[in-house]
Amino acid sequence: MRLQGVAAAPGIAVGVAKVMREEQRPERLPIRAEETVAELERLAEAIRRADEELQEIGRDLTDRGREQEAEIFEGHRLFLQDEELIGKAQTTIREEQIRAEAALDEAMQETVSLLESLDDEYLRERAADIRDVTRRVIRKLLRAEEPLDARLTDEPFILIADELTPSQTAQLDPKATAGFVTASGGKTSHSAILARSLGIPAVVGLGESLFQVQDGQRLVVDGREGVVLVDPAEEQLAAYRQKASEQQALAERYRAFADRPSVTLDGASVELAANIGSPADAEAAARGGAEGVGLFRTEFLYMGRDSLPTEDEQYEAYAAAARAFGPEAPIVIRTMDIGGDKELPLLELPKEENPFLGYRAIRICLDRPELFKTQLRAILRASAEANVKIMFPMIASLREWRRAKAILEEAKTELRAEGRAFRDDLETGVMIEVPGAALMADRLAKEVDFFSIGTNDLVQYTMAADRMNPKLAQLNDPLQPAVLRLIDQVIRAAAREGKWVGMCGEMAGQPHAVPILLGMGLHEFSMSGVYVARTRALIAKLDRSGMGRLAEAVLELDDPDEVRSAVESQLPWLREYL
Amino acid sequence: MRLQGVAAAPGIAVGVAKVMREEQRPERLPIRAEETVAELERLAEAIRRADEELQEIGRDLTDRGREQEAEIFEGHRLFLQDEELIGKAQTTIREEQIRAEAALDEAMQETVSLLESLDDEYLRERAADIRDVTRRVIRKLLRAEEPLDARLTDEPFILIADELTPSQTAQLDPKATAGFVTASGGKTSHSAILARSLGIPAVVGLGESLFQVQDGQRLVVDGREGVVLVDPAEEQLAAYRQKASEQQALAERYRAFADRPSVTLDGASVELAANIGSPADAEAAARGGAEGVGLFRTEFLYMGRDSLPTEDEQYEAYAAAARAFGPEAPIVIRTMDIGGDKELPLLELPKEENPFLGYRAIRICLDRPELFKTQLRAILRASAEANVKIMFPMIASLREWRRAKAILEEAKTELRAEGRAFRDDLETGVMIEVPGAALMADRLAKEVDFFSIGTNDLVQYTMAADRMNPKLAQLNDPLQPAVLRLIDQVIRAAAREGKWVGMCGEMAGQPHAVPILLGMGLHEFSMSGVYVARTRALIAKLDRSGMGRLAEAVLELDDPDEVRSAVESQLPWLREYL
Repeated sequence: MRLQGVAAAPGIAVGVAKVMREEQRPERLPIRAEETVAELERLAEAIRRADEELQEIGRDLTDRGREQEAEIFEGHRLFLQDEELIGKAQTTIREEQIRAEAALDEAMQETVSLLESLDDEYLRERAADIRDVTRRVIRKLLRAEEPLDARLTDEPFILIADELTPSQTAQLDPKATAGFVTASGGKTSHSAILARSLGIPAVVGLGESLFQVQDGQRLVVDGREGVVLVDPAEEQLAAYRQKASEQQALAERYRAFADRPSVTLDGASVELAANIGSPADAEAAARGGAEGVGLFRTEFLYMGRDSLPTEDEQYEAYAAAARAFGPEAPIVIRTMDIGGDKELPLLELPKEENPFLGYRAIRICLDRPELFKTQLRAILRASAEANVKIMFPMIASLREWRRAKAILEEAKTELRAEGRAFRDDLETGVMIEVPGAALMADRLAKEVDFFSIGTNDLVQYTMAADRMNPKLAQLNDPLQPAVLRLIDQVIRAAAREGKWVGMCGEMAGQPHAVPILLGMGLHEFSMSGVYVARTRALIAKLDRSGMGRLAEAVLELDDPDEVRSAVESQLPWLREYL
Repeated sequence: MRLQGVAAAPGIAVGVAKVMREEQRPERLPIRAEETVAELERLAEAIRRADEELQEIGRDLTDRGREQEAEIFEGHRLFLQDEELIGKAQTTIREEQIRAEAALDEAMQETVSLLESLDDEYLRERAADIRDVTRRVIRKLLRAEEPLDARLTDEPFILIADELTPSQTAQLDPKATAGFVTASGGKTSHSAILARSLGIPAVVGLGESLFQVQDGQRLVVDGREGVVLVDPAEEQLAAYRQKASEQQALAERYRAFADRPSVTLDGASVELAANIGSPADAEAAARGGAEGVGLFRTEFLYMGRDSLPTEDEQYEAYAAAARAFGPEAPIVIRTMDIGGDKELPLLELPKEENPFLGYRAIRICLDRPELFKTQLRAILRASAEANVKIMFPMIASLREWRRAKAILEEAKTELRAEGRAFRDDLETGVMIEVPGAALMADRLAKEVDFFSIGTNDLVQYTMAADRMNPKLAQLNDPLQPAVLRLIDQVIRAAAREGKWVGMCGEMAGQPHAVPILLGMGLHEFSMSGVYVARTRALIAKLDRSGMGRLAEAVLELDDPDEVRSAVESQLPWLREYL
C-alpha cells in the first residue's frame, strides 16, 4: 500500500510501525471486603505471568547474542519481588479495598516520584524501569496486549499518530525512532517542526487511511516526497535502502559544513540561523551548525496550558535558548503569534470566518498591552545575558509598529525603575509577512533595526491563497515572481537605510531560492536546523556577484517554473542539493 | 433606543417599522365527513369578518379624504362574493374533505395563475387584489394578525428583516419603502447592494437586537452613519428631518449632474460607470447618470436556484443589461466570482478554513472549463449587440490569465463554427484584486486590454485583514498608503502599455479617494449607481494636474488619517461631498 501525504522532514526511514496510544492510569475501582483474598491472588497471578514473559524475553535476547539488553529484563524481574513496591500494593488492596490495578499503579507512582526527585542519574533510570515493569503487570491484570518494545526488535520504529501530543513527544526516544507519520497536520504543524528539529524523516497529513496500519507492519517513509509505503515489496525496499544510503552520504558531506563559517565562493559572509520553538530545539540547532536563532516562535510557551506563562517562566525559556548558543550569537525572539491557525483557548478569542486574515499576533498584543508587556519584560531581561533581539509579527502598517515600539519603551522604563538589568540598545525589528508592510518597507526601514521576511504568510497574502489549501499549491509558491519582486523591494529599502534583512520562512532553506536571495543581498537565512549544514555547503559553491545577476534576471520572468529553470540552467549541479 | 450598524446606503429615512415575514401557504389538513357543515360555516364566518374589516378601512380612508384608496378596498369586498373564487373553495371542502384555509388558498392560486397568464395589465392587477383579499380571509381563519399595509398609513415603511430574501425583494414596493434595516449582512451583502441600486437608505448588520423592534414603531434610519433610532424623541426627529432635507437639497444639486459629461475643471474626461448585479440595476444606474457598466457581478445569476443558468438565460441577462445603456456604452461583464463569502451549493465546493484565501472565482472556472465556457459563450453572444467587455476576477498570476484567455479563444472558435455573431475584438481584461497581480502589472499590461482594480479584495489581501471583520476596520482602509502605492503602480504600468485602467471597488466613489485616483490617472470610476451624480459633481470641481501633485504627495505619507488630512487641506470644501 502506498500513501501520499505532505513531505514534512527530509530523509528516508525504514522501520516497523508503532501506533501511538495515550497510556491511561487505571481507574480506582472499589472491591467488597470478601473479595480481598481473590484480588490479592489476581495480583500474584499477573506478577507470575509478567515474570514468565520477562524470562522468555531474556532467553530470546541471549539466544540472539544481545546479553546486555537481556540483563535489563532480568533486572525488571527483581522488581517484581520488591517488597517496597509489591508490598505497598498489597497493603493498599487490603486496607483501602480497591482493585489491584489501581493499587499497584499508586505504589509505583509513589516509588517513582521519590526516585525521580533524587539527584542521581542511576536511580532516575531505575525509576523508568519500575514504571516499565509495573505497567507490564497492569497490562496483565487488564488482559491488554503488550505494545511493541524497541529493545525487542532489530528495526527502529516509525511512530504513527493522529498528531503527536506534547506528552508523547516528551517520552519519545530519538535513538529508537526512525520516522514520524501523522494523519493530521501540515508542513508547519507541531510534529513536522519537531521532526525537522530532531532530524527525523516525517510525512504528515496522511488522513484517515493511516489508521489501517497495524503495530509491527514494515514501513518505508520518504520524507522528501511525502510518501509512505506499507509492507513494501523486497525490490521496493532495496531501491529505498539504496536511495537512503545516497542521501546518508550526502548528509555526511553536508555535516562537514556544520562547523565552518558561512562564506560564498567570492568571500561574502552571510549568517545561517535556525527557527526554533523551544530551548531543546536551540540545542539541536546549535549542534547542527546554526550560528544563532533567526526566529524563536514563542507562542508554543502559551499553548497547551491552563494559564498564561509568567514573566519568570518566559524569561527562563528565552535565557535557556540563548545559552545553547553562547552570549554573542544573535537570538531573534518573535513576540507571540497567536491566532491564524494557532488557537489559544485561554484568550477566548471569537471564532473567525478567515482566521488567516483575522485578529492575530500583534493585533491582539496591541489591544492587550498588559499581556504584551509581560512578554516584552521577559525578553528584555533575557537580553542582559545574551545578544537577544525583539521582532514583532504581522506588522501591516507604520502605526502598529510605532505603537508596539511605544509599549516596549514602557516596559524598559518599568525595568529601569525596578533596577533590573537589560540591554538598552537591543535591536528591534519587524517581520515582513503582510504585503502592506513590504510595500511600506522604505518608511519602516528608517525606524526599525532590522527586517525578517516571513515568507510562509507573505506568499499566502500576496497570492491570496491559503497555504494550508492543497488545491492552491501552484499559487502558493515562494518562487512566484510577484513574491520575488516584493522581497527584492524590501531588501533594497533596508539597504538604503543601512539595515540588515533576514528571512525566517521555509524559503530561506530551499535550494532554488538560496542563490536568488543571496544575489538580492539577504544577510541572514533562518531555517529549520536540519537544513543549515546543507545550505552552508550550497552557499560555499555560489559567488555572490553572479547570483546578483541571476536575481535581476528572474525578476523579469512570469512564472515560478521559469524561475526554477533559470536557476537550474545557471547552476546545473543544484539538483544534488534538492 | 439607538442601534449602531453598518452604513450600507446613504440618506436619511423616517418611517414606521414593518417586520418582514415569509408568507407560508396553509397546510392541507383533512377533516372528517361530519365536520363538513361546520367547516363551511367557519369559512362563511371568516369572510364576514374580513368584509366588516374592509368596510371599516374604506370608511376610515373616505373620512381622511382618500377616496381613491377606499375604492380599492370596496373592490376587495366584491371578490368576497365572487362565485368563481368562493364557490370553488366550498366545493373543495365538500368533495376533498379538507380545511377551509387550504381550500381557499387552492381556489385563489388557480384563479390568480389564470389571470396572470393573460397578457392584460388590468387583469394582472386584479390577480394581486384577489391574492390580497383571500390572504386576509385566511388570516381570519388562522386568527392571525393583520400586517401593516402601506395604503393605510400616512408614513412610509422601514423594512426590517434578518436579510432580505430574493422573493421579498421581488414583492417590494419602492414607492412605499423609505429604508431597509437588516440584522445580518455587511456593506457588500445582497440587501446593501439592492438598497444602493434603488437609492433607499439602509443600515445592515445590526444584530439580534433588531428583533426587539415591533411592527409600527417609528424609526429613523441614517444610512450614512449606520444608525437606527427606535421611537425617537421629538427633538431628535426634528434634527434628523432637518439633516434629511439638507441631504435632499444636496442630492438635488448632484442630480443636475446626472446627464452631464464627466469632465474636470481643466477639461480632462473620465468615465463614470456603475457596478450592477442585474438588468434591473442597469436601468436604475442609467437613470442615475452612469455612462456604462464598470462591473456586472454575474454571480447573482447563479445563486438561489436549483440548476446552473443556461447559456441562453445568461445571454438574455447580459443583453438586457446592455440595452439599458444602448449599443455604444461600455459594459464590463465579470465572469463568475463564486466562493469567498458567496456560496453556491450547486457546485458542492468543500468548506474552507479561510474562504477569502480559498478556491474561488477564476480558480474554479479554470478547473471546470465547461462551466466557464458556457458563460463565455453567453457574454460573447451579447457582444454582438453591445459594447461588451470581459473581465476575469481573482487573477493572481500570468499563468491564470493566459489559461483563461485560451478558454475564451476556444469559445470564440466554437461560436465561429456555429455561425453565431459576436464581437471578435471585444476587450478582455483582468481585475486587479490580488496583490500578486498588482505586482506583476507591467507583465500583464502587455497582454490584456484593460485592468479594473477591485479595491475591496485588494485592500483585505494587502493588509491581511478580513474586510468583514469589524475589529480590523482601521487596517481595512483603501487610503492605507500601501494600497495607494499598489494602485499607483498598476495605473503607471498600464499607461506604459497604453492600456486603460478602471476601478470597481467601494473606493471609486469615496470623496477622499476620487481626487487621488484622478491625479494618478485612473480612466474609469465604477461605483454603486447612487454615487455617480455626486462623484461627477465632485470631479467637475477638480483639476487633474493639481490632483497629480496631490497623488504624488500622499504616496509619501505613513497613515490613512494623514492621507485624509492632506486631501482635506488641499480641498477644504470637500466636506460637503461626504
